[in-house]
Amino acid sequence: MFRFMKRMSRKAGLPPGTLVHLGDKPTEAVTIRLIQYNSETLVEEDVQDIGACEPEKMPDGITWINIDGTHQVEVIEKMGRHLGLHPLTLEDMVNGYQRPKLEEFENYIFLTLKMLSYDTEKNELGMENASLVIGADYVLSVHEKAGHVFAPIRERLRKARGRIRKKGVDYLYYALIDAIVDNYFGVLEKMGEEIERLEEELLENPGTPTLQQIHDIKRELIFLRKSVWPLREVISALKREDSGLIQETTRIYLQDVYDHTIQVMDTVETFRDMVSSMLDIYLSMVSNRMNEVMKVLTIMASIFIPLTFIAGIYGMNFEIMPELKWPWGYPMVWAVVVLIGGVMVL
Amino acid sequence: MFRFMKRMSRKAGLPPGTLVHLGDKPTEAVTIRLIQYNSETLVEEDVQDIGACEPEKMPDGITWINIDGTHQVEVIEKMGRHLGLHPLTLEDMVNGYQRPKLEEFENYIFLTLKMLSYDTEKNELGMENASLVIGADYVLSVHEKAGHVFAPIRERLRKARGRIRKKGVDYLYYALIDAIVDNYFGVLEKMGEEIERLEEELLENPGTPTLQQIHDIKRELIFLRKSVWPLREVISALKREDSGLIQETTRIYLQDVYDHTIQVMDTVETFRDMVSSMLDIYLSMVSNRMNEVMKVLTIMASIFIPLTFIAGIYGMNFEIMPELKWPWGYPMVWAVVVLIGGVMVL
Amino acid sequence: MFRFMKRMSRKAGLPPGTLVHLGDKPTEAVTIRLIQYNSETLVEEDVQDIGACEPEKMPDGITWINIDGTHQVEVIEKMGRHLGLHPLTLEDMVNGYQRPKLEEFENYIFLTLKMLSYDTEKNELGMENASLVIGADYVLSVHEKAGHVFAPIRERLRKARGRIRKKGVDYLYYALIDAIVDNYFGVLEKMGEEIERLEEELLENPGTPTLQQIHDIKRELIFLRKSVWPLREVISALKREDSGLIQETTRIYLQDVYDHTIQVMDTVETFRDMVSSMLDIYLSMVSNRMNEVMKVLTIMASIFIPLTFIAGIYGMNFEIMPELKWPWGYPMVWAVVVLIGGVMVL
Amino acid sequence: MFRFMKRMSRKAGLPPGTLVHLGDKPTEAVTIRLIQYNSETLVEEDVQDIGACEPEKMPDGITWINIDGTHQVEVIEKMGRHLGLHPLTLEDMVNGYQRPKLEEFENYIFLTLKMLSYDTEKNELGMENASLVIGADYVLSVHEKAGHVFAPIRERLRKARGRIRKKGVDYLYYALIDAIVDNYFGVLEKMGEEIERLEEELLENPGTPTLQQIHDIKRELIFLRKSVWPLREVISALKREDSGLIQETTRIYLQDVYDHTIQVMDTVETFRDMVSSMLDIYLSMVSNRMNEVMKVLTIMASIFIPLTFIAGIYGMNFEIMPELKWPWGYPMVWAVVVLIGGVMVL
Amino acid sequence: MFRFMKRMSRKAGLPPGTLVHLGDKPTEAVTIRLIQYNSETLVEEDVQDIGACEPEKMPDGITWINIDGTHQVEVIEKMGRHLGLHPLTLEDMVNGYQRPKLEEFENYIFLTLKMLSYDTEKNELGMENASLVIGADYVLSVHEKAGHVFAPIRERLRKARGRIRKKGVDYLYYALIDAIVDNYFGVLEKMGEEIERLEEELLENPGTPTLQQIHDIKRELIFLRKSVWPLREVISALKREDSGLIQETTRIYLQDVYDHTIQVMDTVETFRDMVSSMLDIYLSMVSNRMNEVMKVLTIMASIFIPLTFIAGIYGMNFEIMPELKWPWGYPMVWAVVVLIGGVMVL
Repeated sequence: MFRFMKRMSRKAGLPPGTLVHLGDKPTEAVTIRLIQYNSETLVEEDVQDIGACEPEKMPDGITWINIDGTHQVEVIEKMGRHLGLHPLTLEDMVNGYQRPKLEEFENYIFLTLKMLSYDTEKNELGMENASLVIGADYVLSVHEKAGHVFAPIRERLRKARGRIRKKGVDYLYYALIDAIVDNYFGVLEKMGEEIERLEEELLENPGTPTLQQIHDIKRELIFLRKSVWPLREVISALKREDSGLIQETTRIYLQDVYDHTIQVMDTVETFRDMVSSMLDIYLSMVSNRMNEVMKVLTIMASIFIPLTFIAGIYGMNFEIMPELKWPWGYPMVWAVVVLIGGVMVL
Repeated sequence: MFRFMKRMSRKAGLPPGTLVHLGDKPTEAVTIRLIQYNSETLVEEDVQDIGACEPEKMPDGITWINIDGTHQVEVIEKMGRHLGLHPLTLEDMVNGYQRPKLEEFENYIFLTLKMLSYDTEKNELGMENASLVIGADYVLSVHEKAGHVFAPIRERLRKARGRIRKKGVDYLYYALIDAIVDNYFGVLEKMGEEIERLEEELLENPGTPTLQQIHDIKRELIFLRKSVWPLREVISALKREDSGLIQETTRIYLQDVYDHTIQVMDTVETFRDMVSSMLDIYLSMVSNRMNEVMKVLTIMASIFIPLTFIAGIYGMNFEIMPELKWPWGYPMVWAVVVLIGGVMVL
Repeated sequence: MFRFMKRMSRKAGLPPGTLVHLGDKPTEAVTIRLIQYNSETLVEEDVQDIGACEPEKMPDGITWINIDGTHQVEVIEKMGRHLGLHPLTLEDMVNGYQRPKLEEFENYIFLTLKMLSYDTEKNELGMENASLVIGADYVLSVHEKAGHVFAPIRERLRKARGRIRKKGVDYLYYALIDAIVDNYFGVLEKMGEEIERLEEELLENPGTPTLQQIHDIKRELIFLRKSVWPLREVISALKREDSGLIQETTRIYLQDVYDHTIQVMDTVETFRDMVSSMLDIYLSMVSNRMNEVMKVLTIMASIFIPLTFIAGIYGMNFEIMPELKWPWGYPMVWAVVVLIGGVMVL
Repeated sequence: MFRFMKRMSRKAGLPPGTLVHLGDKPTEAVTIRLIQYNSETLVEEDVQDIGACEPEKMPDGITWINIDGTHQVEVIEKMGRHLGLHPLTLEDMVNGYQRPKLEEFENYIFLTLKMLSYDTEKNELGMENASLVIGADYVLSVHEKAGHVFAPIRERLRKARGRIRKKGVDYLYYALIDAIVDNYFGVLEKMGEEIERLEEELLENPGTPTLQQIHDIKRELIFLRKSVWPLREVISALKREDSGLIQETTRIYLQDVYDHTIQVMDTVETFRDMVSSMLDIYLSMVSNRMNEVMKVLTIMASIFIPLTFIAGIYGMNFEIMPELKWPWGYPMVWAVVVLIGGVMVL
Repeated sequence: MFRFMKRMSRKAGLPPGTLVHLGDKPTEAVTIRLIQYNSETLVEEDVQDIGACEPEKMPDGITWINIDGTHQVEVIEKMGRHLGLHPLTLEDMVNGYQRPKLEEFENYIFLTLKMLSYDTEKNELGMENASLVIGADYVLSVHEKAGHVFAPIRERLRKARGRIRKKGVDYLYYALIDAIVDNYFGVLEKMGEEIERLEEELLENPGTPTLQQIHDIKRELIFLRKSVWPLREVISALKREDSGLIQETTRIYLQDVYDHTIQVMDTVETFRDMVSSMLDIYLSMVSNRMNEVMKVLTIMASIFIPLTFIAGIYGMNFEIMPELKWPWGYPMVWAVVVLIGGVMVL
């Protein structure tokens, strides 16, 4: 469960800028996909040779380099040298536990975010890092693992749908960020459904597994919140940055993304409030049920213990017990028993 | 219950500015009502043709276009093109889960709020979106569903009551916002009554349904709070904006609306404090009642268990038990029983 | 109990500036008391005719108009027109649920506060609105109900005690605010005594009524806090305002009032912390007592249930039970009983 | 226990600047001690006549007037007039419930703090007010009660230890503040020891007295926090003030005091966190112990209740009960009893 | 456990700048290690004579003086005089309870941090102070105890690995801070593992020791948080300082350290959230288990108490009890017993 913070200490003692891959190590090879386009043409290819990623090849063209997989640090290092990125940027790219942040450098902006997924089978939140670099005429996107979040953007580029082919490199940059943030809503929806299901279970038939599941989702939310909070700051810093890489007309779209991050944060806070409240309800439900159980016990005991005492009295073997000889003694005991029992029930 | 956040993810992957209606889909057709007035005349009509909404038709007149229903996105789109609104504005208008916000554009201000209703039968909070656009000589109001919140304003316009006919388009804009915010008080009042009822139930006869109702209202408050918090910011931004669309004399009225939103927020926070406190009280009441039950059980058991033991002793069949032969044996047992019972009761 | 927020919605739909009295409706008539003074003379009278309230009547004089009762809105309206007050100011004056606030207008400052009282019989907090307007040469004070808070100031004015007769209109304004805030300490003291009493009850003999009283005082504190928090802001704004109505030498006195409001807020927060902690203690006490009860039950049951079993064994009617024939059988049973009983007690 | 907020309301209705002593009334007389020194000489005397406190008497000398006791308000009043202090300053000096604050006047700075003590016998926090005034060439210190906090400074002055005799009046001012804040650490240490003792008691043998003591220390911390929070602000304001009374070289020492107040606040917050957590632990411990008790009861009852039933069966007096006649009937019952008992124990 | 705040009061009453060692007193002697280097040469030696620490000895060289142990205050004092440090700086260096802080002096910057360690045997957090001074051409590092945190940096210096030998004194300063902060991750990882272990124990087999361990780790986190919070401020102040001692190119590395401190803080907050949630779960688990126990008891009692009563009835010795004579009486009782028992089980 602490998968989000394991082996953070592996880098202690190394000089800054040393590339150490932190995170799960997938087995697939790293793939580099190059898309170059302008409003007329679009070229798309999987490249092996990083040298092929020449932004200058297409006149007035925009180059989008997408790397899936960060576990082969030498690929990242070569690409970094090719594009003139700072060693600290590369270090952050390969660190799967990197907190979302934005850094402006002389000739590029570096931004790293979390990408989320939710496994509805195991009710487990997945997180991976995504780094986005924007330069004068290129965008570099680096994923920890292969994923499908950018597929609709590739589709829009290929089919020249929307404004995307006509706009500049900053619009592509925005579109990628937007795709990642939009993807959060799907994850939140799945978590919302799980919370809803738990809530029903809680009010109908709460047991120890319910408690464990509430605890699990609470923990997922703690981690989710930790990933989402810095996002707001990051997008807000991007809106305000003044490097010249982001054009004025794109800022309104960034404002839109910003609104979405606020909505994501709101929803996470709402979920947290709900789950907290569920724990209180659980405790109340358990107390309630104990109350029911105790009432049954008390009623049974209060009725039958005095009756058993009366039966015990007349089971005594004293030689002189006048009642035992009365002809109506036995029916009288029954009468008393019924009387006492009736009073107790009331 | 999660009706306030369902299907938020439907838009993921679409280009920005694509109009997708999010929210419940009512079956009624979208209606457009056009009111044009100046201090002398007022013309009111339901229009089909959006082209008829010509602000310029009446000299020195103010045009108020009101659209009820956002599920026919093409109507919104046409109107948007007609009035020169940004695609992102239109996208927010048809998104029923949009967070309240204010955006200034070159020639209009866009503001979106939540409208509340409270179903006292089901104790359920209703929310819908309302968008308000102010331009140089028109106000456009868009509701998710048809409603009666603006009816008093229409009445005041028709009867030329108050200052409204003599003031500018910004005063109309203020009046619409004021109507929405004033409407909150009615909803809060109904929730307050429900909380009060629950409080009495809690102290008189708390049961599992009380718990569930406390939980329900707590959740309603979580959602309500999420809708009300951004309101303060929005109204505060409107007060301070400097586009020239809002005149100086109207600002004091906006300050008044601002005070109301603060009061709404205060009340929501007060309700939250109360409901939180009710959960604590519930737990204490349950513990208290368990205590009562346990006391009864303990008293019954402590009195009768020793007595039954005594009766059991003299029910033994030993051949030599001298007490059984004593003439006063049986009365003595009774004496002991009464004595022990009396001591125990004390 | 929700008396502090009832019928807030009565005004929805009315044009702004419509005077609607919100709050309890007392039966007494509204009284207007006029005091005019300078350092030499003082004239005091109850007036019927609002036109008599002429600030100009006394040269270099200060006019203090005090209105007790806001339920006759026409009186307020007339006075407002007489003094040239904005309709929104008048609307706030007659709204008994108005949140404390300060508003600067061109030629006057409007300030509204809560006045508190505490009914020690019912342990109920009372709140009413007080509005204070300062103009160039007059102060207008409006109370929701008649009260005695300003009596010492009238006394000081009549007897020319302290600096008050020699100072300007802003000093009178300060003196009235100071009287209201000073009055809070008395209310807090009474609540403090009630909390102290509850605390003793809690540790000595807690029951369901204790719980209810803790709940009641907690709610009173929620409302009290809501009224006191905005006060700080209001006084702070008054200190900083620059309309020329408040002189430099008076600001140090306003700082003093500000310090008092901070102390009031501190005390309210302290009370809240205490009452919250009392709820926790209550729950612990109840659990503790249940523990005691359960221990008694367990001891009784653990001792007598095995003994009763032994007695039961020798009450069986088997034909062949050798122990029954032993001469020492019966004493042996007693010995075993005493032995087991003794062991159990240990 | 509410000794920190009693009779706050005694002053309501009096004109501002009226000196009313609030707080405990000690019986000893007020003492005034005058120390005048420069780098060569030092004169120290107890004075009766306030007129003797002439800062000008010693050329280039620094005058330190220390007053122990504020209950004779006329002494404070005379001294105030002698030194030219504002009536509001004097009012604050004699108010034992005054919140820590700093006020700059034209020719002096007034600062009031809380002095703490901790009675380890009764585990009771003591608080008294200390006021410090710095003028051009004098420092006036006023204590609510006589105390020993300034003794080391007198010693350092007499023996000319450290820098104190060579530095200006602002350094003396700093030294007095430093002495008061340093004294807090001793009080916190004693509270820390008490918390530690309670923590051990809690985990070893918690009872109702433990609960009461946790509650008591929690309340002490609430009051302590209330006194310490404003301190930070006060020292921070002193660091930044620009009246010319504090020299540049002294500011680094004030920064040091400021660091200490932060550490004091940190420690108080830490204590609060700990005590809060102790209440939770207490509740868990009580539940835990109840669990143990219930387990014993359940085990006893589950074993012996079925056995007693079996014995009861064979105690019935039916004429035809075949088992009673079996020669092995009685041993068989024992066998069944041992069997059932054994199974139950498992 | 209160080892982090013991004897803080030892210094009360002493003049400021008096060096008093606060903290544990190790027995080893204080060691001073001198490293001087430029891009070509490196000299490393353990020195006795503080006079040997001449920054000027190596042209264009950087001097790093490292002192292990602060308990011999005279060593610190001599070094301080040698390098021209302010007495307050020296006082802070030897105070083991010093809160992390940054102070800029005319010709040096002083920074003090906490160094952490975690004893996995005892699950105990260790803390010690580290002070770092940067001057024009030297860095002074002072540790409370000898440690290995700086070993990798010495190694990098010796082997001229990374940029460190080519960069200025500010880069060395950064490298030392970075080493301390990186070391935090290891400690957090160990605590995370302990929390994970406790979480499993909690859901599988919670007992009083679990509770105590949760309480222990909660307290460790309270202290950890207190040490980590000021760190953020300190590093942030260092980033922004403008003394000329920190070069522009080093700031980006400080930003990197800053990001790490944010991540450390995030993790501490996450741990706190988790441990808080564990206490709630514990309480729920205990209630749950009590519920189970009570159910068993209630089932046993509800079944057998009525049955025992029936057996008691027919154990009575009345002369006239017709059922006793019925031939099918005894089997009928058994039938009733089985019937009632069966119904009860259902």
